[in-house]
Amino acid sequence: MTDRFDHHVLGIGNAIVDVLSLTDDAFLVSEGLAKGSMNLIDTERAEALYAAMGAATEASGGSAGNTVAAIGSLGGQGAFFGKVCDDTLGRFYRHDMRAMGMTFDTAPLPPDATPTARSMILITPDGERTMNTYLGACVELGPDDIDEKIVAGSAIAYFEGYLWDPPMAKDAFRKAADISHAHGRKVSITLSDSFCVDRWRDEFLSLIKDGSVDILLANDAEIKALYQTADLDTALRAIQVDCPLTAVTHSEKGCHVISSDGIVPVPTTPVERLIDTTGAGDMFAAGFLYGHALGLPNEAAAAIGNLAAGEVLGHIGPRPQRNLHQLAQQAGLL
Amino acid sequence: MTDRFDHHVLGIGNAIVDVLSLTDDAFLVSEGLAKGSMNLIDTERAEALYAAMGAATEASGGSAGNTVAAIGSLGGQGAFFGKVCDDTLGRFYRHDMRAMGMTFDTAPLPPDATPTARSMILITPDGERTMNTYLGACVELGPDDIDEKIVAGSAIAYFEGYLWDPPMAKDAFRKAADISHAHGRKVSITLSDSFCVDRWRDEFLSLIKDGSVDILLANDAEIKALYQTADLDTALRAIQVDCPLTAVTHSEKGCHVISSDGIVPVPTTPVERLIDTTGAGDMFAAGFLYGHALGLPNEAAAAIGNLAAGEVLGHIGPRPQRNLHQLAQQAGLL
Repeated sequence: MTDRFDHHVLGIGNAIVDVLSLTDDAFLVSEGLAKGSMNLIDTERAEALYAAMGAATEASGGSAGNTVAAIGSLGGQGAFFGKVCDDTLGRFYRHDMRAMGMTFDTAPLPPDATPTARSMILITPDGERTMNTYLGACVELGPDDIDEKIVAGSAIAYFEGYLWDPPMAKDAFRKAADISHAHGRKVSITLSDSFCVDRWRDEFLSLIKDGSVDILLANDAEIKALYQTADLDTALRAIQVDCPLTAVTHSEKGCHVISSDGIVPVPTTPVERLIDTTGAGDMFAAGFLYGHALGLPNEAAAAIGNLAAGEVLGHIGPRPQRNLHQLAQQAGLL
Repeated sequence: MTDRFDHHVLGIGNAIVDVLSLTDDAFLVSEGLAKGSMNLIDTERAEALYAAMGAATEASGGSAGNTVAAIGSLGGQGAFFGKVCDDTLGRFYRHDMRAMGMTFDTAPLPPDATPTARSMILITPDGERTMNTYLGACVELGPDDIDEKIVAGSAIAYFEGYLWDPPMAKDAFRKAADISHAHGRKVSITLSDSFCVDRWRDEFLSLIKDGSVDILLANDAEIKALYQTADLDTALRAIQVDCPLTAVTHSEKGCHVISSDGIVPVPTTPVERLIDTTGAGDMFAAGFLYGHALGLPNEAAAAIGNLAAGEVLGHIGPRPQRNLHQLAQQAGLL
C-alpha cells in the first residue's frame, strides 16, 4: 500500500435507503421472518409489509455505501458506485454520500424509471435487525457503471456479497476487479449474509480460490456457511489456506484476523447500550480497510473496525452519528 | 372531560418530514441562522441549504403531528389534520401516523402537485435544533379539511402556532374551534416559536383574550415574546389573567402550570445525555393534554409531559422510540 492513490476505499454495492422501525419478536413470527436475515422482496410484498409494520425513520444505507460513508467519517477518501433513481430517495442517497465528502457519480436512472431501492429494517428489542429489501434501481447496475479511472486510483476496491443478487452486478465486479489488480490495487469482498452465501457459495469460493479476492470480510455465520461447517475453527483454518487476509467478526466478542501470520483474536469493548446492530458489520469493514490502506498492522486495523462498529450500535440507523476520526484518535488508534 | 369522546387529542398542524443533520455552531453562523429558531424558506433556499449541509436522516415530524404520534405511544386515541402530497414523503408521513394507530384522513394533494413539506433541522453539539422549513403542500390546508365529526368527537382540539404561517389555516382553526366549543370540547394552542409569536402576536393575544383558547402551551421565550417582556414572572402573571389553563416549559427545569389555582412549578429529572431537542415541546404537549383528557390533576398531567419530553432528548428525531405508556406506568404516572 505504498503507491499513491486518490481513494483509500472504493465501495461497490446496492444503493439502498433504509426504512427502520422498532418492533417485537412476535411481528417477525407473524410475518414469517428469520431474525437477522436479509430477505429480497418484490413491490407487492414491500407494500404489504410496509402497511403492516410500525412507524419508521429513513436513512441512507446499503452495506458498501455505509462502509464508504464511514471512510469519510474516519477522515479518509472514498468513492462509491451504486445505482439509484433520480427520485426523492435517490436524491437523499446522493446527498448523504457527497455530504461525507465521498465521490459518487454513478449515473442515476431517470425519475420515472424503477425507483430507488429501499429496505424495511425491523429492529427487535435485542438490537438485532431483520432486513426486507426491494432492490429497485439496483438491478440496473452493470459493467458500464465501472469508472476505470476511479478503480485504478483506489487502494482497495470493496464489493458487498449482496451485489451477486442483481443480475449484472457480478459482471461489474469482474470488470472492476481486473482493473484494480492491473493497477496493483487490492480487491476485497464481504460475504454479507449467510443466506447470501447459500445463494452464491460456489461463485464466492471460486473467486476466493482463484486469487480474485485479497481481503475477505465475514462474520461467524457467514464463514461457517461458506465452508458448510458448524465449527468455527474449521472455517477459520480453511479460509487461512484460501485467502491472503481475512477478518471474521463475532459481535460483542470482537474479531479474528486470519493470514499466513496466524489466526489472531482482536477483542472489543462491549457497548453500554445496544439499540440497533444495523450497519455494524459495514462499520467494521470501514475501519479495517481504512487501517489497511494506511499501512497499519492488521490488528490495529481490526481495532479501528471494532471501534467503528461500536459507534453505530448505540443508535438507530446504519451510519455513524459521531466523528469516527475523533473517536479513533481519542482511543489512540489513529 | 367527563363526556365520552372518540379521540383524546385531535392535532391540527403542518405535516412536515424532518431532514435531521448533526452540525456545528460554525455552520449556523456561516448560513446566518439564529440557533433554536424556525425559519420559513422557499424552494431555492431549500436546495442551497440542503446542498451545503451534512448527511441527514429523515423522520416524520411537524409539531402537532409529533404530539399526535406521541398520544398513540401513550396509549391514547388521536387524530390528525394536515396536508401532504401523495408523493414519497407524503406516503411516509401517512404511514407513520397510521402505524401509531392514529386517524389521519386529510385528502392529500395529487402526486404532481406541490410536494410534501420538509424541514431541514440542524442539530448542534448542545442538542439545540435550528429548523428550516419549506411548507410545500401545507399551504393548501384550509377549512374544507376540517372534518366536523372528528372535531366534535375529540376531547381536545390542539393547534400549533405555526399554522398561522400558511394562508388558509387560520380559517381552518376558526372553523374547528367553533365546532369544538359547540360540542363542549376544549381548544388548545401552542405558541410554537418566539419568532412565530412575533409574526402573529396580535392574533394570538386576541384569540386568548376572547376565550377561543382553553389551554395554552408555550416555553419561556414564547410566553415572554407574547407579552413583550424580559421578565418571566410578569408573563406568567399576565397569562394567568388571560387564559384558563397554561403550561410553560423551561427545558431541563421542568415547567409551570398556570391557572386560577396558582402558578405551580413542576420540576423534571434531567436526562442522562442530551442529543437532540427536536420534538421535546411537542412531547410535553402530548403528555400534558393526554393527562388532561384523562381528567388527571394539572400537575400529574405536566409530569407525564415532562417524562415524554425526556424520552426524545436522548436520540435524533422528534418522536418517541420507546413506548411512552410503559415508561409512564413504570414511573407511576399512568
